[in-house]
Amino acid sequence: MGGDNAPGEIIAGVLEVKEALDDDDEVVLIGDEPIIQSQLQKQGASADTFRIFHAPEIISMDESPVEAIRHKPKSSIAIMARAASHRQVDAVLSAGNTGACVAACQLRMRNLEGVLRPGIAVVFPTYYGPVTICDVGANIACKPINLYQYAVMSSIYAEEMLGVPNPRIGLMNIGEEDAKGNELVKKTRQFLKSDPKLNFVGNLEGRDIFEGKCDVVICEGFLGNVVLKLTEGLVDMIFAALAQEVKNRNKLMALWFKSVAKEIFKKYDYHEYGGALLLGVNGVSVICHGSSKARTIKNAILACKKFATKRINEKIVERLNQSTVESNGQ
Amino acid sequence: MGGDNAPGEIIAGVLEVKEALDDDDEVVLIGDEPIIQSQLQKQGASADTFRIFHAPEIISMDESPVEAIRHKPKSSIAIMARAASHRQVDAVLSAGNTGACVAACQLRMRNLEGVLRPGIAVVFPTYYGPVTICDVGANIACKPINLYQYAVMSSIYAEEMLGVPNPRIGLMNIGEEDAKGNELVKKTRQFLKSDPKLNFVGNLEGRDIFEGKCDVVICEGFLGNVVLKLTEGLVDMIFAALAQEVKNRNKLMALWFKSVAKEIFKKYDYHEYGGALLLGVNGVSVICHGSSKARTIKNAILACKKFATKRINEKIVERLNQSTVESNGQ
Repeated sequence: MGGDNAPGEIIAGVLEVKEALDDDDEVVLIGDEPIIQSQLQKQGASADTFRIFHAPEIISMDESPVEAIRHKPKSSIAIMARAASHRQVDAVLSAGNTGACVAACQLRMRNLEGVLRPGIAVVFPTYYGPVTICDVGANIACKPINLYQYAVMSSIYAEEMLGVPNPRIGLMNIGEEDAKGNELVKKTRQFLKSDPKLNFVGNLEGRDIFEGKCDVVICEGFLGNVVLKLTEGLVDMIFAALAQEVKNRNKLMALWFKSVAKEIFKKYDYHEYGGALLLGVNGVSVICHGSSKARTIKNAILACKKFATKRINEKIVERLNQSTVESNGQ
Repeated sequence: MGGDNAPGEIIAGVLEVKEALDDDDEVVLIGDEPIIQSQLQKQGASADTFRIFHAPEIISMDESPVEAIRHKPKSSIAIMARAASHRQVDAVLSAGNTGACVAACQLRMRNLEGVLRPGIAVVFPTYYGPVTICDVGANIACKPINLYQYAVMSSIYAEEMLGVPNPRIGLMNIGEEDAKGNELVKKTRQFLKSDPKLNFVGNLEGRDIFEGKCDVVICEGFLGNVVLKLTEGLVDMIFAALAQEVKNRNKLMALWFKSVAKEIFKKYDYHEYGGALLLGVNGVSVICHGSSKARTIKNAILACKKFATKRINEKIVERLNQSTVESNGQ
């Protein structure tokens, strides 16, 4: 039920992905059953194609997450998180209210063994390849040990999901020198340096994200959230300004520019990755952008499967278990 | 001596600005005297056009600011800050090492009466007009009272320098709702709301900077610094990717696109504003981008003059003096 294009695009994505899945894979739909049924019919699928978990309530995109989860136990997001916690499903995904989705999953799914706080990882497509950024908003009271764990988890994520061997990890900071930054990043830096299994390449500045200096960027959730939304807004502004400028000069050229922009968007398309991963919960939780279309949903479902198949959570638990980094409350 | 194009572009800017200044305005050059003299000669100006404060040492762009200030008391930046503190000059500007410049000015110029910590304000050109962001890196251990003071100072700055009447002030956050954010922004929000003289419009998300929702954005210096550098890096990446895509398709079109991009850069040109302002020091301190060209330097000098003429510092002191916001150590 979630996102700007639900349920039409969600169902379209689910129907599309079926061919790419194996016979023993099953997609369960969670939401208002009559609406789902009629949408399935509309798209030419028979009503019994999928199991449906009926959820009569809907959390809207602008509701306060914590309030919504508390007052709408029969919402699709709440039922989804419970289904994950009861192991009725192996992975969950939603394009709905991000905050509610994260809150529900954190509440119900519990953390992986050894993980103190889950973090959200997103992939930024850049000229030099995909860059994974964690955390973009799950944890806005980060301690150094949380950031260290995000580095471990994101590194495994980038290696297994994106095929980046021995990912280079950078710490978001305000300068490259060792002594730069606030207490949080200074202590985190010590943790990252002390783990020989991490390919830590040092401090990064804001612009370095796009300059091929690393494969993984670690930052606390408040900063990461601003970075994520700022990037979206800036990209939109630049392309709008360019389109306007081109149109002012030459209307025919505007059509041509549109096709160039489309090509760029295809190359730098975060929909390719399906959605953000809530790393550190005991299960698989993918959070899709509210604007997700069928292809995004399809890719997100494939990402869920890959995440489970690659046994990423097991690898995270194993790595954290071997780690000698001691937080001492930090 | 500072910046990527010194001293040539600096001197060119100073020569250019002379016509726009009044007879009783004086520009003093600080740096290695023989180098300055030969550069003046090269650009066709007589050696006695300007007073020169000789500074035999140079702080390079990649030196650690605090170390550099300590060990190079005869650098142009250190002498500049001392000249400001001794009232030998009314305003200072540099395109050199930003950190060293900020550190030297903070150390020597002292704070305005009532100001607890200076902050750096920069202007982002957006589709909807200029947006002033403060702090972008002077203070990475912000307390709510610091952020409140940045709002007061930036508001006066935007009104007086950019001609924005009653500037709308937004607080950088991870969501628009009241309850969103960490302790720092929650307390800051209370301060901002409690001052009836501020036109506080509420929380902002990263993308809102570019969507015309406010004229002033307040954030702590670590975040602001990442935002500033990220924006620069992302703009560069997008235009590089576009230029490549256009070139791949049609080499002739590449020339045409270059002129479009140039037009966009002109419209969204931060050089227009000369540089960043170190708000809250007892004097006028403008920090120019390392890549500053003659026009930037010219605009920065005019900004210095405007800042002094508009008596912005007096207005800041007066406003803070009238404020009923009590920090109680916060």
